[in-house]
Amino acid sequence: MRYFVIVGHKAATTGDFKLDDIAGGAGRLDILVRCVNSAFFLSHDIRRDTELFLILLGGDGPPKTVRFSGAELRYLNPDERSTSSLIRNALIKKIEKEEVRSSPGIYVSRASFADVLTALSEKGRIIYLKEDGTEFRGRSIPEDPVFVISDNKDLSEEEERTLSGYDPETVSIGPYSLHADHCVIIVHNEIDRNAH
Amino acid sequence: MRYFVIVGHKAATTGDFKLDDIAGGAGRLDILVRCVNSAFFLSHDIRRDTELFLILLGGDGPPKTVRFSGAELRYLNPDERSTSSLIRNALIKKIEKEEVRSSPGIYVSRASFADVLTALSEKGRIIYLKEDGTEFRGRSIPEDPVFVISDNKDLSEEEERTLSGYDPETVSIGPYSLHADHCVIIVHNEIDRNAH
Repeated sequence: MRYFVIVGHKAATTGDFKLDDIAGGAGRLDILVRCVNSAFFLSHDIRRDTELFLILLGGDGPPKTVRFSGAELRYLNPDERSTSSLIRNALIKKIEKEEVRSSPGIYVSRASFADVLTALSEKGRIIYLKEDGTEFRGRSIPEDPVFVISDNKDLSEEEERTLSGYDPETVSIGPYSLHADHCVIIVHNEIDRNAH
Repeated sequence: MRYFVIVGHKAATTGDFKLDDIAGGAGRLDILVRCVNSAFFLSHDIRRDTELFLILLGGDGPPKTVRFSGAELRYLNPDERSTSSLIRNALIKKIEKEEVRSSPGIYVSRASFADVLTALSEKGRIIYLKEDGTEFRGRSIPEDPVFVISDNKDLSEEEERTLSGYDPETVSIGPYSLHADHCVIIVHNEIDRNAH
């Protein structure tokens, strides 16, 4: 499996945003939506071996986590608008303690960044993508890696402290700082090549 | 410079599509719009050394070519909707023989695929991204490379014949067939690494 955790610092946590305004009123939800595209789309297929966790920390109901499970995903299209609509449907769901399914392969919960890291650290090694990390290319890639990527803001000091409790590797994927969704593409390509 | 040529086989060539329907009524314009994002965005910068040519072959007025010049680009945002709006503004422009500027760094013309290849083949080597090409990684990358990528449809036989007249290298970027915008990301990353 490949796991991706994307932190959306201002991303909407309630479903009352407009699909025409995901980059504005929904707190740069556009960034997270593009990560969904990057995480799952092959040319004529879906990456079934991938799970994506969007940690939503803005709006009126933080934290919320929307989880996408590639193995079960249906009704996912590559464009931003339709994916935003799937996320909005998840955010409209009433959540008690347990994670709730909003559509096939899409789940929503009140899990925090730390909750998600705690659960995933049992599954595989945590790998933090950051500009000053060590070179990712050519490394041996651990089984079931868990990649943590921030949105257009760096992780806060508190988030970095939380993350450091899980003994992450810190890796970089090239000489420039890239958008989160572009990082996901490059990570997938590297693992694809390693697996062949 | 880095040049990218993306062929949009059914993409709208007139500006009468709805921004809510770029994946439908605008002939999968969403694919091309994502290529704009991939071609130009760094984390907090624009790739000034890149030019992108969208070859639009659908709708009521084909062919049209929308050219994005990174050196001059302004008002570009990463989300699909706002970029679609810039393209729509270009397609509304009245074009005679010459290329017309629709906004800073964005130009529209009646250039065909062959016209664009003829002009760019004077600038650098044409490189065709295709699944059965030879491995791109580790090659020496020619100066001012011109990458040709098709949308969700393969190039037609006639387009392949046209392209073959420019003696292209044919390269592949990994074991899986990827979306055009994902290919652009991987190509950029490879050149970024080579340049450092």
